[in-house]
Amino acid sequence: MPSVTGPVDPFDYIVFGATGDLTMRKLLPALYYRFRDGQMPADARIIGAARSKLSDDDFRGRAEKALARFVKAPDLDEAVARRFIGQIYFASVNGAEADSTWENLLRLFDDGVASRTRVFYLATSPSLYGDICRNLSEHGLVTPQSRVVLEKPIGTDLGSAERINDEVGQVFEEKKIFRIDHYLGKETVQNLIALRFANPVFERLWSSDAIDHVQITAAETVGVEGRGDYYDSSGALRDMIQNHLLQVMCLVAMEPPGALDADSLRNEKLKVLRALKPIAPDDVAHVAIRGQYGRGKIGDTVVPGYMEELGEGRQSRTETFVALKAEIHNWRWGKVPFYLRSGKRLPNKSSEIVVQFKETPWSIFKSKLQSNRLIIRLQPQEGIQLSIMSKDPGPDGMVLRPANIDISFEKAFSTRYPDAYERLLMDTVRGDPVLFMRRDEVEAAWTWVEPVLDGWARHPDTLHYYSAGSWGPDAARTLLSRDGRCWHEDVE
Amino acid sequence: MPSVTGPVDPFDYIVFGATGDLTMRKLLPALYYRFRDGQMPADARIIGAARSKLSDDDFRGRAEKALARFVKAPDLDEAVARRFIGQIYFASVNGAEADSTWENLLRLFDDGVASRTRVFYLATSPSLYGDICRNLSEHGLVTPQSRVVLEKPIGTDLGSAERINDEVGQVFEEKKIFRIDHYLGKETVQNLIALRFANPVFERLWSSDAIDHVQITAAETVGVEGRGDYYDSSGALRDMIQNHLLQVMCLVAMEPPGALDADSLRNEKLKVLRALKPIAPDDVAHVAIRGQYGRGKIGDTVVPGYMEELGEGRQSRTETFVALKAEIHNWRWGKVPFYLRSGKRLPNKSSEIVVQFKETPWSIFKSKLQSNRLIIRLQPQEGIQLSIMSKDPGPDGMVLRPANIDISFEKAFSTRYPDAYERLLMDTVRGDPVLFMRRDEVEAAWTWVEPVLDGWARHPDTLHYYSAGSWGPDAARTLLSRDGRCWHEDVE
Repeated sequence: MPSVTGPVDPFDYIVFGATGDLTMRKLLPALYYRFRDGQMPADARIIGAARSKLSDDDFRGRAEKALARFVKAPDLDEAVARRFIGQIYFASVNGAEADSTWENLLRLFDDGVASRTRVFYLATSPSLYGDICRNLSEHGLVTPQSRVVLEKPIGTDLGSAERINDEVGQVFEEKKIFRIDHYLGKETVQNLIALRFANPVFERLWSSDAIDHVQITAAETVGVEGRGDYYDSSGALRDMIQNHLLQVMCLVAMEPPGALDADSLRNEKLKVLRALKPIAPDDVAHVAIRGQYGRGKIGDTVVPGYMEELGEGRQSRTETFVALKAEIHNWRWGKVPFYLRSGKRLPNKSSEIVVQFKETPWSIFKSKLQSNRLIIRLQPQEGIQLSIMSKDPGPDGMVLRPANIDISFEKAFSTRYPDAYERLLMDTVRGDPVLFMRRDEVEAAWTWVEPVLDGWARHPDTLHYYSAGSWGPDAARTLLSRDGRCWHEDVE
Repeated sequence: MPSVTGPVDPFDYIVFGATGDLTMRKLLPALYYRFRDGQMPADARIIGAARSKLSDDDFRGRAEKALARFVKAPDLDEAVARRFIGQIYFASVNGAEADSTWENLLRLFDDGVASRTRVFYLATSPSLYGDICRNLSEHGLVTPQSRVVLEKPIGTDLGSAERINDEVGQVFEEKKIFRIDHYLGKETVQNLIALRFANPVFERLWSSDAIDHVQITAAETVGVEGRGDYYDSSGALRDMIQNHLLQVMCLVAMEPPGALDADSLRNEKLKVLRALKPIAPDDVAHVAIRGQYGRGKIGDTVVPGYMEELGEGRQSRTETFVALKAEIHNWRWGKVPFYLRSGKRLPNKSSEIVVQFKETPWSIFKSKLQSNRLIIRLQPQEGIQLSIMSKDPGPDGMVLRPANIDISFEKAFSTRYPDAYERLLMDTVRGDPVLFMRRDEVEAAWTWVEPVLDGWARHPDTLHYYSAGSWGPDAARTLLSRDGRCWHEDVE
């Protein structure tokens, strides 16, 4: 099925932190696919920027290896890849310092490219965002056609987020700032908007009238591995809940926007975040469960505990697991809690939204009825599943059984699923901010999350431990069972 | 998957009209499957009764051929079939006459079987039902454990239906009379009850709030072929609409019954029939379209017209096609018409219920939205399909496309689908009347249908002609387009 999108206008894509994992694993492969599919014109440039002293050819060599590793073999056309790599450049720049290394970048920008779309993608530590932006500005690199892309997390709490937003905001107008959350680029997450607002059969069910509660889970089997230093200063709440899971929750919970433009959508998401019941300090221990994994087994493999992974003798109270109850105080979602959960070293790699519908008000059947459930899988295989009760076929009486209706989009459309970054990177080129977070959203999310961080800090005994390969500490189960509910994987 | 039902108690199943097509094609194969699956005990008997002078062995020979022809080869176990056929007997009886041939039947009923369940299945012309019942009674064959099964159609209008019901009612109490409608034995039809009342996600959508209209179609590609004489005195309205389609409509439209027993269910179905807006004589031409097929093509095959099929020089005004608009005057279905349609020599063999949902009240998308549609297929392959709008996967903007979610029950349950008759015959043995029609239902259906027959008779010009292989006369399309709607197959 051919893409309906033709090539975009020529652009320059400047990636700071170009030698890092994200660039190699995600950004270059995503741009390759867009190039291969004819969307990236032949004179667009990708410019890697980092402190390392590399030549264009050095960096192209790394890019080539990255494509070989992270693009699926059948998709990697050698001739196409060679042309793509020819459009890659490198500048050795000390982004945070106003030193002479900036000349290495400046030399690439002559008058011929002055009016092009210019995207600065900051794949660096957030602590550098302000400095890089100031330096971009002071070196005259910020043109009217320039935009900046910020990787999460924006800050580590409300104060630091505000500081970063202020600093970046001194150089770029808000509408030129693209705060990326790759969860929002996932097909099924975008499809949430289509499912809800193009299908009365779903939207009519979408409230406390029919829904009992919602579970949003992002589970990983991996531990922290090489990322221990970053992770230990962050933790699951900052790394996953504050951004990804709250954003997904907003799309599930928001009211229908009046239009599909960025601000209409973001105004609705913001309303959800602002309607979140604040978590009182005394409630933190009960509604925001944190855990850290110890040694355990994933499948048949024995894996070390979190502190072992950090390294010899390291102690840490950082959470690798969070389960919390979010209550949205508005008409639609009163009495319908959203349970959010994320963790490392859990039994499966899976991100999913479980919409649990209410029980039938009355049953005329002898069979035990299981309540309907809509599962929206974001990972590993995007798709939707509706569980219904159906008659057991046969000449007997009315015996009912649960049946799952699978809506596998890949099968339904028999087409490759683009990676989230492909969509999002092209959105930054086109200047479409619909799927990016506005400043006030990020800050509203921190406003809600911060009391949890404070409460945990004040009550060290709130840290539970769990075995790697389990679904987190028992307290996470109690969080739901206290409400007469259970996590999806515990049903039946 | 093993059946949960063990064997029933020994029974005698006496079929009048035993040499006919229905017995061979449906009843004997259905009983074979129940025998093979262990539900029919080794001393149960099947007794064919008909005027033909056959021995037990003659009839067994015919039964053997019927199994070979109508049971799927892999299901036909030779040893099992031999044992099954050993339980078949024949009595040459002139059912409508009180003559000496009854001795042939009576000799089979000694004291040893007096207390057994005894089912009399009347697969004869309905005009004989009264006489056969009277003779059964006069020969002392009707025991307290006896039931009678009546094949449709019960009568040809309200008066004749009442007459038959009266005559049969003089011998059998209403609760011993099983009026069979094999549509009600279909898995997906029974599943309607499960889907609606075990799944809040469906029942919450099930009213004029969300539904625009409903289409119920039973389409055949065959003509009348050998059945011309019967069919010409009946027509599509009597043959299909009055019974099958109205019954299916009742299950789609009824209120939730308080329990799953026969009378709770039938009371709700009756309420639907009695809520049908009567069709006024002057409206018949507009809301009840009738047609008769002429010569045409099914696929690539040229087929004769109806009157040609009847035979040399035969003239007829019998309808082979009906499309009508039924309005249910109650709170749930006000302004939601049910369009019923049935015909012969249509392009496909298919029976289906199409629940057409309303449009979105507002669209934020550029793509044209198709309204949601739930298609419940009864034939040829039972299953359910929900059409939704979904995001076209890809890195472009929010482009939407219709996607069909298939719920194939055979796949979902990976089990053989029993024929409707298997279920229904065993229900008559067990004495479970849930899926059978009560007298008042049949008569309510005739009460609604009769003015249509009268209107047509008074206005001969209401008969339209259509080419074999088309979807009926244009007037059937106009029936919907006048309301701003179209038949399912005309969408897009």
